[in-house]
Amino acid sequence: MPPPVSPSGAVSGQGRRRDPEALLEAARAGDKGALGRLLSLVERGGEPARQVGRLTFAPSAQVDQVVGITGAPGSGKSTLTDQLISAAAAGGAGVGVLAVDPSSPFSGGAILGDRVRMQRHTLDEGVFIRSMASRGHLGGLAAAAPEAIRVLAAAGLSLVLVETVGVGQVEIEVAGATDTTMVVVTPGWGDAIQASKAGLLEVADVFVVNKADRDGAAQTGRDLENMLDLNSSTSAWRPPVVMTTATTGDGIDGLWDQVREHRAYLDSTGERQRRREARLVAEMNRLLVHLLERDIRALAGSDRYEATRADLLAWRVDPFQAATRLLAGTPVP
Amino acid sequence: MPPPVSPSGAVSGQGRRRDPEALLEAARAGDKGALGRLLSLVERGGEPARQVGRLTFAPSAQVDQVVGITGAPGSGKSTLTDQLISAAAAGGAGVGVLAVDPSSPFSGGAILGDRVRMQRHTLDEGVFIRSMASRGHLGGLAAAAPEAIRVLAAAGLSLVLVETVGVGQVEIEVAGATDTTMVVVTPGWGDAIQASKAGLLEVADVFVVNKADRDGAAQTGRDLENMLDLNSSTSAWRPPVVMTTATTGDGIDGLWDQVREHRAYLDSTGERQRRREARLVAEMNRLLVHLLERDIRALAGSDRYEATRADLLAWRVDPFQAATRLLAGTPVP
Repeated sequence: MPPPVSPSGAVSGQGRRRDPEALLEAARAGDKGALGRLLSLVERGGEPARQVGRLTFAPSAQVDQVVGITGAPGSGKSTLTDQLISAAAAGGAGVGVLAVDPSSPFSGGAILGDRVRMQRHTLDEGVFIRSMASRGHLGGLAAAAPEAIRVLAAAGLSLVLVETVGVGQVEIEVAGATDTTMVVVTPGWGDAIQASKAGLLEVADVFVVNKADRDGAAQTGRDLENMLDLNSSTSAWRPPVVMTTATTGDGIDGLWDQVREHRAYLDSTGERQRRREARLVAEMNRLLVHLLERDIRALAGSDRYEATRADLLAWRVDPFQAATRLLAGTPVP
Repeated sequence: MPPPVSPSGAVSGQGRRRDPEALLEAARAGDKGALGRLLSLVERGGEPARQVGRLTFAPSAQVDQVVGITGAPGSGKSTLTDQLISAAAAGGAGVGVLAVDPSSPFSGGAILGDRVRMQRHTLDEGVFIRSMASRGHLGGLAAAAPEAIRVLAAAGLSLVLVETVGVGQVEIEVAGATDTTMVVVTPGWGDAIQASKAGLLEVADVFVVNKADRDGAAQTGRDLENMLDLNSSTSAWRPPVVMTTATTGDGIDGLWDQVREHRAYLDSTGERQRRREARLVAEMNRLLVHLLERDIRALAGSDRYEATRADLLAWRVDPFQAATRLLAGTPVP
């Protein structure tokens, strides 16, 4: 059991409000406001984010399970997430929820309406819900999400649900930050095929056919099973297809069982550790690319860049020659 | 008038088949096979592509107008392109067509069926049609397209049509390589809005409502005009909305007039030169990023990388610290 996170924030001194160490201490003691501010620091990037990153990077700061919930808009992910919070909290876990909106430059944004559905949990002890955007974070959301998960872990939460809006590259990248990825589809012709085309077949650990009380739910389930039959994956885990009706809670317990089953599978095969290591290395590689891109932007103001640009526009060097020349003298920090 | 490109390739010696200089000479003399091989070299990347790039990078190798044709699958782009070939060729221009398929790793691929519709022009003098993919090109299609356009220009063609399949990031990048971007929509609720959401409102110089004989065409035209009313662009050029029925040829002459009108606008305002310069610099920057990424992949096999990776997995450095450390010693060519 993690230390409970209390709904009312503990009083923290004004001067300590932005000091990461003090914030982390307060968050550990159950101050939700402090936890929120730590996540804001991560989102905004820069040296404070780096400091939070160093503070929360420790073997102890690992949550028990990170569950991704992804799927097309309108598939009922938020209501499903809401139900899963209840299921997880009933099992005694401290639950953190990150609602990731890649389309909005500001936290909340387009999905604030959806968030309202989770409001009934916002004052619960041991439940922390946060809409997340990337703001200034180097590498955007894909890079910010794993850091945010480590912050939640450092604050003592043992289960993290990451809900992403939409089906796209960012979702697949964010899915890469989770232990268990749940892909939500709704009944209807082509939905299952859409999920497959978007590359979700490859990232799904559990399929959910939500709104299962609607026409065509059984067919959508069969479509998914057929696609899984054709899948060439050599994994010993075959993603189960679970039917749910999130609005009534039907099927949620069974879904939660499958999520925990996947957790046990990951552990028993050593896959959990392998995934976590692969994720850390991917995170490092991504930051490396972003740091290099930052260097290029810095380079763009230099005399050398301007001289090369002038040579290019005067047809003296072609774009490849120009790029090669610039790279040959790239200043590295 | 460019030197005509003859349908039957001139005879070139076996030994010279892959020498870029000889191929370019033959292409200039009207050998379509040689022109095709030059484009294959560009697609495949590597040193031969670089050599072609240097050979064709010259002030003389500029076409009169590059026209992008983009829009959702099924909007009739290929038939429209076919009609535009006729309109352009009637005006005396040598026409090159690049059909860009980002989804296929091989030239042709999924859009070969569409290409059939253009077959009636493939044997025309002064018309060269090519499906294009990126294969091994550093930077993919977005980088290969401007190089391919320079090859067509060096071969003496004065007008290039670039047709892209689908509506996505690649299309928007390819649109960046053109002087005039035509966005094709079809009648139907939401089509115009889709185009707007996909960012096409920002890149469109001319809107085409194709299949204008169908129900809802006038409404789709009004939707586009309304969106243009709301657009905050400060450009003196307001994209015209042209109704066409490509299958019958209705509206094609009017469309072609608007395309040429945009060409005159670009010239008179100096915008044409500014766009071309901005494109060259963007091309250089993109190559710079790709070269750096190539360096990172090379780094991944090094002892230093492995040591840093080990420190990361042992919790001794966090991902950011690891990336910073690796970058500090990145070998630059």
